[in-house]
Amino acid sequence: MNDLPNLSLTKMDQMSLFHPVSSIHDVQQNGPQIYTSAQGVEVTRDTGQTLLDMGAGLWCVNVGYGRTELVQAGAEAMQQLSFQHFFGGASAEPTIRLADRLLGLFRDTVSGSDMARVFFGNSGSDANDTAVKLVTYYNNLRGKPAKKKIISRKGSYHGLTLASGSLTGINGYHTAFDLPMKGILHTSCPHYFAFGQDGESEAAFTDRLITEVEDMIASEGADTVAAFIAEPIMGTGGVLLPPEGYFAKLQEVLDRHDILLIADEVITGFGRTGQWFGCGTYGLRPDIVSLAKGLTSAYFPMSASIISNRMWEVFASASEKMGAVMHGFTYSGHPVGAAIALANLEVIETEGMVENSAKLGPVLLDALRDATKGNAHVGDVRGAGLMAGVEFAGFPAGSAPHKIVAKHATAAGVLTRALPFMPVTSFSPPLCVTEAEISEAANRYAKALAAATPELEALAS
Amino acid sequence: MNDLPNLSLTKMDQMSLFHPVSSIHDVQQNGPQIYTSAQGVEVTRDTGQTLLDMGAGLWCVNVGYGRTELVQAGAEAMQQLSFQHFFGGASAEPTIRLADRLLGLFRDTVSGSDMARVFFGNSGSDANDTAVKLVTYYNNLRGKPAKKKIISRKGSYHGLTLASGSLTGINGYHTAFDLPMKGILHTSCPHYFAFGQDGESEAAFTDRLITEVEDMIASEGADTVAAFIAEPIMGTGGVLLPPEGYFAKLQEVLDRHDILLIADEVITGFGRTGQWFGCGTYGLRPDIVSLAKGLTSAYFPMSASIISNRMWEVFASASEKMGAVMHGFTYSGHPVGAAIALANLEVIETEGMVENSAKLGPVLLDALRDATKGNAHVGDVRGAGLMAGVEFAGFPAGSAPHKIVAKHATAAGVLTRALPFMPVTSFSPPLCVTEAEISEAANRYAKALAAATPELEALAS
Repeated sequence: MNDLPNLSLTKMDQMSLFHPVSSIHDVQQNGPQIYTSAQGVEVTRDTGQTLLDMGAGLWCVNVGYGRTELVQAGAEAMQQLSFQHFFGGASAEPTIRLADRLLGLFRDTVSGSDMARVFFGNSGSDANDTAVKLVTYYNNLRGKPAKKKIISRKGSYHGLTLASGSLTGINGYHTAFDLPMKGILHTSCPHYFAFGQDGESEAAFTDRLITEVEDMIASEGADTVAAFIAEPIMGTGGVLLPPEGYFAKLQEVLDRHDILLIADEVITGFGRTGQWFGCGTYGLRPDIVSLAKGLTSAYFPMSASIISNRMWEVFASASEKMGAVMHGFTYSGHPVGAAIALANLEVIETEGMVENSAKLGPVLLDALRDATKGNAHVGDVRGAGLMAGVEFAGFPAGSAPHKIVAKHATAAGVLTRALPFMPVTSFSPPLCVTEAEISEAANRYAKALAAATPELEALAS
Repeated sequence: MNDLPNLSLTKMDQMSLFHPVSSIHDVQQNGPQIYTSAQGVEVTRDTGQTLLDMGAGLWCVNVGYGRTELVQAGAEAMQQLSFQHFFGGASAEPTIRLADRLLGLFRDTVSGSDMARVFFGNSGSDANDTAVKLVTYYNNLRGKPAKKKIISRKGSYHGLTLASGSLTGINGYHTAFDLPMKGILHTSCPHYFAFGQDGESEAAFTDRLITEVEDMIASEGADTVAAFIAEPIMGTGGVLLPPEGYFAKLQEVLDRHDILLIADEVITGFGRTGQWFGCGTYGLRPDIVSLAKGLTSAYFPMSASIISNRMWEVFASASEKMGAVMHGFTYSGHPVGAAIALANLEVIETEGMVENSAKLGPVLLDALRDATKGNAHVGDVRGAGLMAGVEFAGFPAGSAPHKIVAKHATAAGVLTRALPFMPVTSFSPPLCVTEAEISEAANRYAKALAAATPELEALAS
């Protein structure tokens, strides 16, 4: 039994929906949580409760909910050309303009980048699946058929198709699905707070991890390792910022062994870290950039893969001999998604949302530090731009204090995500968030933390 | 050089877009074909040319282009709730109603089916990728960790993620991508016209193929084979209708060996074959049904996987112990896609488009038979509902007469697809197509065939 106002919808959900990343038992016992509308940073449930969505959905509603500009751009594009495929050289204007815009944005904001073309898909998962396939294609064309392995990292999240789920480095997503597949390796998680050794400096921690990567390449054989995939900041893993010097040293190793770098910017792209791209924030020079989420602020499923010149040159020069590149999806380049993405980029730019992310990032961090100050169960508060995490510490391995806190936060009217790798609640509000909204969200979180404290104490002891 | 009116867009496309399933060389040499608008069955290019789209995009625009009902439903849903995820039991009304509606539709139109729940994704590719993962999950939960192989068929098309591309049974999609991955097998293509032996009856052909499946199961070991995947009609393979008795005999074998059936209805679903689902047309009783394309008529990227009771029972009873089913996508169940899908189903139903498909299927076949009558290069004309294929014959292996014809057809103002497995041009118009439009399209196709004949003769000799 439950006290939701719309029992028939609840029942219908329980009898018909197979929820993604959900417990069947929980939905059957407690019913779903039904959301009815959303505007800006605020979402409303069928119970009438309004909540501040400090998750922006799943790190994705970058411009906030209910933006008429995006709705209108989508409706106009849909009325004009409700669908167009891009197979066999077919094309449409919004998608062409979006590809051009993305290349320009990346070139202008990520120094040292050298990108050539944009491939479109539908989700971050298929973008990373595409990356696996293109890396394979690249090395087959180059006559390096043995160079196919991809190194990922423990704690990373790269999606859940079979291939992208294999790149993901979190056991929970692998168990009972026989993942990862062969040829995907995982090196250590670069999270200094939890995995730095006693007395080890952050710089020494970085060096140890880079040495581990070098050793892995040596033991596998550099001629068998094709690529390394990394999120600039690990999102689902726990808002894990790269330790001091990490990417500079990593890239030096990859370059030395002719190993491609895939930057998964599905979460960090489009202003999240206070710059347009996380590659800019941390100095990455990738060969493939996977984008989704913030690309359309999730109003329409769309992903983009930006491909470097050195890969494109290999594809282009083999083209006459190879014929069509036999990869793509029906909805690759959907003109309605492209029109929405263009409107989305326009809103981000004209309203200075990337700048807002840079400006309010420290405000968010301060507010979270205030809200958690003196709480013995909170180990670390960190972030970059409008992407922050509160990590709990001092609990038995495998326990989930952050889930307790997230549940109380929902009750207190603030959505924060309890993440599946480290005991972290994450904050990634829409980039339109105001100082007042951050302050209110932090107040609610502080109340939730207070309400959770008896349970946390019981769990810790 | 080219004579397109909008040279700057063409140039921008060539400099920025990595087209899916396209030749880089061709786009760089000849430019893209830019489409600007579409209404009903008609699409318009930037050259001003209008064409009858006898492909409905990529078999997907079932209700036709530019339907205001879908645009409006999408815009309203997007303004109200531009995004909602379904993780952790979160939910939203349009998606709940769509899941309920799909279960009802399938139950009412596919006799003997026993389906339990609907999982949502973004594309046919991810739906089939999901099928691979759920089959694995199912047998792990049942304590059958060795029972994981999936049998697919040569000539089948199931998508292009790494896993779904492995299910696909067409070499062109595998070459240089190292596909198929381990554990995916391909049995013979059930295309009697091309692969029936001299003097072999259609029934004998079916028996030979079923015996081959039995032998494959025996030689692999039934305890290692988890599932068989099949399109009711093979679409991309060449509009290949199942031979007499095929599915009844196949299912008897699968049942005997405790092997699941995955029905890929991405093309055949939602009226294409003259019934709501191809499973109804050919008597399939699947455990997983993959749907996409016609679900939203491609106005919004969305897929659905309908799961049988016997699978669901295993998932549900393991749930308390296993916790969340750790599979899903950010856009799984997108409420805007669901609202568009509901409007789409409403249009199909109120305008009798499934009945139109059943009624005009024979009209389309007759028109194509008339258009190709007496042409020595045409070997077979076949179809079911508004899904038809013209197969060419008498050409050297590896040659592509159908591509020549498709090119002339485009010039003559009719879009037909030249398929990648058999030398077939396919016809799958929007289900709103009229008799007059079919007749006009067939006339244009006849003209194209006449124009192509000198090239065909040169190729054949």
